[in-house]
Parts: sequence; structure tokens; C-alpha cells
Amino acid sequence: MCELLGMSANVPTDICFSFSGLLERGGNTGPHKDGWGITFYEGKGCRTFKDPEPSCQSEIAKLVKAYPIKSVSVISHIRQGNRGRVCLENTHPFTRELWGKEITYAHNGQLSNYNDLKPEFYRPVGNTDSELAFCWLLDKIREKYPKKPSNMAVVFRYAAKLAATLKDKGVFNMLLTDGVYVLAYCTNNLHWLTRRAPFGKATLIDADMVVDFKEETTPNDIVSVIATRPLTNDEQWQKMEPGEFVLFKLGEKI
Amino acid sequence: MCELLGMSANVPTDICFSFSGLLERGGNTGPHKDGWGITFYEGKGCRTFKDPEPSCQSEIAKLVKAYPIKSVSVISHIRQGNRGRVCLENTHPFTRELWGKEITYAHNGQLSNYNDLKPEFYRPVGNTDSELAFCWLLDKIREKYPKKPSNMAVVFRYAAKLAATLKDKGVFNMLLTDGVYVLAYCTNNLHWLTRRAPFGKATLIDADMVVDFKEETTPNDIVSVIATRPLTNDEQWQKMEPGEFVLFKLGEKI
Repeated sequence: MCELLGMSANVPTDICFSFSGLLERGGNTGPHKDGWGITFYEGKGCRTFKDPEPSCQSEIAKLVKAYPIKSVSVISHIRQGNRGRVCLENTHPFTRELWGKEITYAHNGQLSNYNDLKPEFYRPVGNTDSELAFCWLLDKIREKYPKKPSNMAVVFRYAAKLAATLKDKGVFNMLLTDGVYVLAYCTNNLHWLTRRAPFGKATLIDADMVVDFKEETTPNDIVSVIATRPLTNDEQWQKMEPGEFVLFKLGEKI
Repeated sequence: MCELLGMSANVPTDICFSFSGLLERGGNTGPHKDGWGITFYEGKGCRTFKDPEPSCQSEIAKLVKAYPIKSVSVISHIRQGNRGRVCLENTHPFTRELWGKEITYAHNGQLSNYNDLKPEFYRPVGNTDSELAFCWLLDKIREKYPKKPSNMAVVFRYAAKLAATLKDKGVFNMLLTDGVYVLAYCTNNLHWLTRRAPFGKATLIDADMVVDFKEETTPNDIVSVIATRPLTNDEQWQKMEPGEFVLFKLGEKI
């Protein structure tokens, strides 16, 4: 299994605090030592840092932790491989272009009997069930919407419907984003919360780190965080139900 | 205009030395301050570091310079923007998946009258002439080869033919790779060399740095480097002719 982390915000926000907690699970407080990755959206573009090295030792992870890249949509993943060996092409998140938009995806779980997933348009580069499922999802979306719908929310709701088909094949916890919307789909393990004014303190579970969001934010900021397991021990995390999805648009659950 | 840097090698090789020279041109010894990027192939996967900040000041560039990522195929670009504003989505290199392979591209130059380039399959995310030309190239390749040819060299030769059409629209210097082949196409400004045993010393033009490749290599290593302008002042760089292309496979010109 793996750990997922997502963020959706109404103003460009750095994810250093949450990412610091996640990183520790990459070989330190958690066993997820088979690589990690993180994708930041900035404007219409996105950039991904990834490394097949354990995140708790990775030089690149150290940079990402120390260098506050501000983004309204972030997806991150640390891997404990099951299907597909440890290598760069099997390291999440995965990104593909659809209608001139960058779509980014990360998966936690494991699928069986997925040989009937035969994407044509998008093809996996590595050999994980995760990337295959992503290509299949995009193929289905492209088939249904040859042109970009004016309202992207319908695309994410359709993706959640498709995710239910994948859930029938095993464990499928997923984060999916186009840089404006962030979709979280749960099979068995996904939590989220929204931070807004009045902001307070939060304490990481996995690292000795406290942040006072009052000092880091303005009163209008709205930031939602999604994670496999709660990252802090003094905030109210919502546990998602099997088959439930939550769609965020720039910080707010919609 | 911009500066291009490419590498093709028969063993995973770091590009720290050449990249150090290139970086200085990003706002220091050269005016190319509108962002930079570099893509490394490792196995079937690739990873890209990019930053809309000038490379001579970029924290991420410092990491890439100091952290030797070993790769057999690398493409890098520093940008002095002409078409398209300075932002992440306009920052090279660009990567798209084709037949389950990551294809990476960077362009130096400027095109005019490119409104007849109307890619359908791949669509630009940003608004540079460069990314539009890349999408058009891939569309044409996909049209001609719906399935991956067993010999990828034919694909790159076809890409060089397509590049000639783009050259008719202005200045089109290009690097294109699938991680095994590296294609360099020249309109007006591209140089290359191949380093092989017996290795010697090389001195960077743009930074106070000398390397003795004898100490860094084994006798079987073959490494070709392609750059807009020569990076060293004591090696024999080949100047490419207008309309000429050079195709490298794992270090060797083929």
C-alpha cells in the first residue's frame, strides 16, 4: 500500500508542513520506501518532483520540504510497491494532457483482474496497475467528452463513477486533479479536512512540528487537505466511506 | 532566443559539468532569464525539473547542479521568451506520452505563420509556438505510425523531415528524445561533440570549472553532448549546418 496526500486551496499555498509529515512515512515512521512524488500546479502548468529513493532519505524531498512552492492544487504519493518494480516509471503521480490540460493522478491500493482494461489512446509507460487504471480512466473520459466540457465538475463526477468500476477490482483510493478541481475517491482509507478562519495550531503526528496557521494565512484563505491517514493529532479529520468521493474546487468541497 | 543542451550516453552519466556552464547563461553570462528546465531519462521513465525563475538564481537548479542524476538521455533548455509569457506552462522541455513511451522536446527559435498547425490529438497547455510545434509533430508521427514501429530510428528520421517544414516557418533548432535516441535538428545554431577514450580535460567557457574526464569515466564510455553554443573552449565542437540533423543512439551518432 501507499500513502496519498492532496491539497486544494483558494490562494497559492505551500504544502511544506503536511509534506514534512508524509515524508517521515517514507521509510521512517512508515514502511513506504519505494519512492515518492509530488505535483504542484502553478497557473495552467504543473511540475512534478519524483524519486525512486525512500522519501525520508531523498535529497530532492529535502529541497521540496525546504523550498516553499505555492500552489492551489497539489497531489503527492509515497509508495510501498506491490504491482510493478521500484523504478522511476512506476513512481506516482502520473500526468497526461487532455484537451490541453494537465491531468494528474495518484493511486493507493491494488487491483486484480484488470486485464480487461485496455486503453488505446493513453498507454502506460511503466507496469503498475495504477498507471494502467489512470490511462483507462482518461480513455473513457475522452471517449465520452471528445471536447472539453465548459464545466469541468461534470468530468470529475464522471471520473468518480468510473472509479467505482475500478473499486470492484480491488482497493482503489485515488486523487485526481486538473489544477482547479481535486477529486478524492475512497475505497477504504482516505481522510480530509478544511482549514479556514479562525485558524489555529496543528501538530504533526509523524514529526516533531507544530504550526500556527494564524501566522501563515490571511482570514480569507481556505485550504483543504486530503490524506490516507490523518497527518495531525489536534484537528478534526473526516474519514471517508467506501465508495464515497469528495470534490474540491479551489479549497472548498463542492 | 534560448539555449539548448542535450546529452546521449551509452552508460548512465551525470550532466553536472555541462549543466553548470549552461546555467550561467540563464541571467549571468547570457540573457536567458525566463526560466529553464531539464529532463532526465532513467529506465523507461523520465523526470523533469523546471522553474520559471532565472536558472542562475534558481534553488532547484542548484540542486540539479549538485546532485548527480545519472541518465543516458538528457534534454535541457534555458529560455529567453519571445512568444508566450514567462510561466511554468511555457517552460521547456515538454513531454508527452506516445505508444507508452515518454517523448521529450525542447525548441530554440521562433516561428511565424504557424496558425495552420492545428494538432488534434495532442494539444498545447501553454501558448508558445514551441509547444504547438511539438504537438503538431507528435500528431503527424501518430498519424503515420498508429502503432510503434519496431525500429524507433525511422520515427526520428521522420521527425527530422517534419522539422524541415517547421524550419520553413522561421528558426527551428530542436532536441527530441525517447530516452534511447536523441535527435538534434538545426536551423542556425547547434553544435555537438562526442567524448570517448582517450579522455582528456575540458574547460567551461561560462564558469570557472575544469574537469578531467579520465577521472570520471571508464574507457568504454561514449558520451555525446549537443549545445546551442560550445560549452568548452578546449574541445572540438562540430557546428551543424542549416537543415542538418544528427541522430544519436546511446552516445553514438548513427
